[in-house]
Amino acid sequence: MSGSSKRAVALHRRLRGKIQIQSKMRIRPQDIQLIYTPGVAAVCKRIGSHPSEVYSLTSKANNVAIVTDGTRILGLGNIGPHAALPVMEGKAVLYKKYGNVDAFPICLSVTKKEQIVDAIRAIEPAFGAINLEDIESPKVLQISDMLSDLPIPVFHDDRHGTAVAALAGILNSLRITGRDLKTARVVIAGAGSAGYGICELLSYSGCGNITVADSAGVIHGKRKQNMNPYKYKIAKMTDASGGSLSDALAGADVFVGVSGVSGILSAKMVRSMAKNAIVFALTNPEPEITVRAAKKAGARIVATGSYQYKNRVNNAIVFPYLMRVILDRRIRRITPKILCLAAHAIADSVPQKSLGYDNVVPEIGNRNIQRNIKSALAKIR
Amino acid sequence: MSGSSKRAVALHRRLRGKIQIQSKMRIRPQDIQLIYTPGVAAVCKRIGSHPSEVYSLTSKANNVAIVTDGTRILGLGNIGPHAALPVMEGKAVLYKKYGNVDAFPICLSVTKKEQIVDAIRAIEPAFGAINLEDIESPKVLQISDMLSDLPIPVFHDDRHGTAVAALAGILNSLRITGRDLKTARVVIAGAGSAGYGICELLSYSGCGNITVADSAGVIHGKRKQNMNPYKYKIAKMTDASGGSLSDALAGADVFVGVSGVSGILSAKMVRSMAKNAIVFALTNPEPEITVRAAKKAGARIVATGSYQYKNRVNNAIVFPYLMRVILDRRIRRITPKILCLAAHAIADSVPQKSLGYDNVVPEIGNRNIQRNIKSALAKIR
Repeated sequence: MSGSSKRAVALHRRLRGKIQIQSKMRIRPQDIQLIYTPGVAAVCKRIGSHPSEVYSLTSKANNVAIVTDGTRILGLGNIGPHAALPVMEGKAVLYKKYGNVDAFPICLSVTKKEQIVDAIRAIEPAFGAINLEDIESPKVLQISDMLSDLPIPVFHDDRHGTAVAALAGILNSLRITGRDLKTARVVIAGAGSAGYGICELLSYSGCGNITVADSAGVIHGKRKQNMNPYKYKIAKMTDASGGSLSDALAGADVFVGVSGVSGILSAKMVRSMAKNAIVFALTNPEPEITVRAAKKAGARIVATGSYQYKNRVNNAIVFPYLMRVILDRRIRRITPKILCLAAHAIADSVPQKSLGYDNVVPEIGNRNIQRNIKSALAKIR
Repeated sequence: MSGSSKRAVALHRRLRGKIQIQSKMRIRPQDIQLIYTPGVAAVCKRIGSHPSEVYSLTSKANNVAIVTDGTRILGLGNIGPHAALPVMEGKAVLYKKYGNVDAFPICLSVTKKEQIVDAIRAIEPAFGAINLEDIESPKVLQISDMLSDLPIPVFHDDRHGTAVAALAGILNSLRITGRDLKTARVVIAGAGSAGYGICELLSYSGCGNITVADSAGVIHGKRKQNMNPYKYKIAKMTDASGGSLSDALAGADVFVGVSGVSGILSAKMVRSMAKNAIVFALTNPEPEITVRAAKKAGARIVATGSYQYKNRVNNAIVFPYLMRVILDRRIRRITPKILCLAAHAIADSVPQKSLGYDNVVPEIGNRNIQRNIKSALAKIR
């Protein structure tokens, strides 16, 4: 293990997990008859007769379930619900610190989509929103579709959060290298949740030239191999006709790696890209190309999803802040419009004077993010 | 609404729920690479290769799911999962304050026993124990049986917690009125979870003369009406042959009311009991008889489950403390032996000099409780 791995394990062992439940008030013995029996009965009866009061009298309005089945944890793959827990707790910590959202890990022992949907429907009453996390694709996209009638919003961080972070970074990268989203050529490596989400959001946001490649090459409507309904949707949004990732990258302005495979972007491919190439190698924990190698091969802007480097295009700059507004505004459905507005709001959070090749997205603690997303979504219903 | 009801609703409205998720450490930006990506990957991998480490490196060991379907909330009946939430949150507050247990409400939208069992099995990985709460009987007893192979313990507070609190109070009440559990005549009103649990625990603890009555009268093996498998078990433990609650109470030493029906114990019935009658009217929020009426009718010791009166025989003196030991010792099954040892430990927590007619159980904050339960269960495997 590396030094930082050892430190991470030691920290988790000392804390025995990163989250705890706290009372919102200091409880004196005489308060028990208000917060518990008999006083609490009046609160229960009030909600029974006025159902919407559950949002005013309980923690539901601020509770988020971080739901995973452990089948696709970071770039580690299917390591199960127990081994997934440290990631979910880390997420809960960030939700609280940056968004004041109370998120709790729901790590499922079941992996079939119907079972996952049933479990989410079953636990829904105590939560104000669901955050789907690190569930394998395309299953998770189907789960999200199957839950479209749930009475609370389903935020799929790998799809929605990553797409917003990527678009925010791309917008700023194009701005400082003097290009435009409409005409830029963007190549996405990976067609899982993140690849699908980024393609969907770029397309909605007006990007006119997107290519998506997975392990079987560039996705297009006539490809037979390794397709699924979401890849057919990608084919419709991208209008490509074939070739390899390498073919697609020749002359491209932007590479976005969400492939889950470290090292798949070679220096040669970067060299074949357009001048002032933008490389977002977002796979965690190890990116598609090292920052050093990408820069050496001529990339002007290099970003990763990791907190070890500059340009941290990680959904952590999105989910705490966006969820805060989703909960406060009681938004029921996460739409491309909401995501596009959020991405612009985040891009605009980097102060003009510090915007630069090594600073295309705001730091996670940047206070502009919350204010900007809040005002960008002020008119969303 | 009464004044205290109004205050309870106002307090809940001001707090918007009583619980929140907190990080166990103050997070500085440089810690994010340890608690989140990339450092957290080493923690995940460690659990992947050493599964038992989930108890050392995550919050699982201290997390409890308080699971309800809202079908039997306090004495309010089937008010649904949303209206149930204030009770579950109150419970979580007490779990934290008195046991340092991190409990989270899981309010289910499903009410069929198979669905509830499936939901609990699905969410189990992130929890160290399950607390079944306010689910209608006998369904909840079946659910508990169906979950006997779950890898974590299932504590059923209405059955286990109430039984321990009642036995602790009965032990002290008999002690100070000079009687013995072996020979005392005990009559239980109610054959739901609490009635079943109290009967089971009294029987295990050596009480030789128990009678249980429900809305159809005294339960016995030849009764046809309104029976279920658990009532047949009660019949075996109690050896009664018929009659009404009123018949059973003539000459009885102890009444234990867990009927869910306020007012069913009349002054006349109390007068028919043995000298120094002990009346535990435990239904919440309104007991089987008022404290005043019971005393006026000659009861020597009167207890309720409410925090409005003295002698608070409420499972709140049990669940935070007992769960602390269950989690710390990784106890897998809640047995009558564990419950009996816990009841004696709680009874012994009332300091000898303050034991009295109005002080048969310890106050919830009494520090002896935790120490005594811990040492009583020190040898349980």
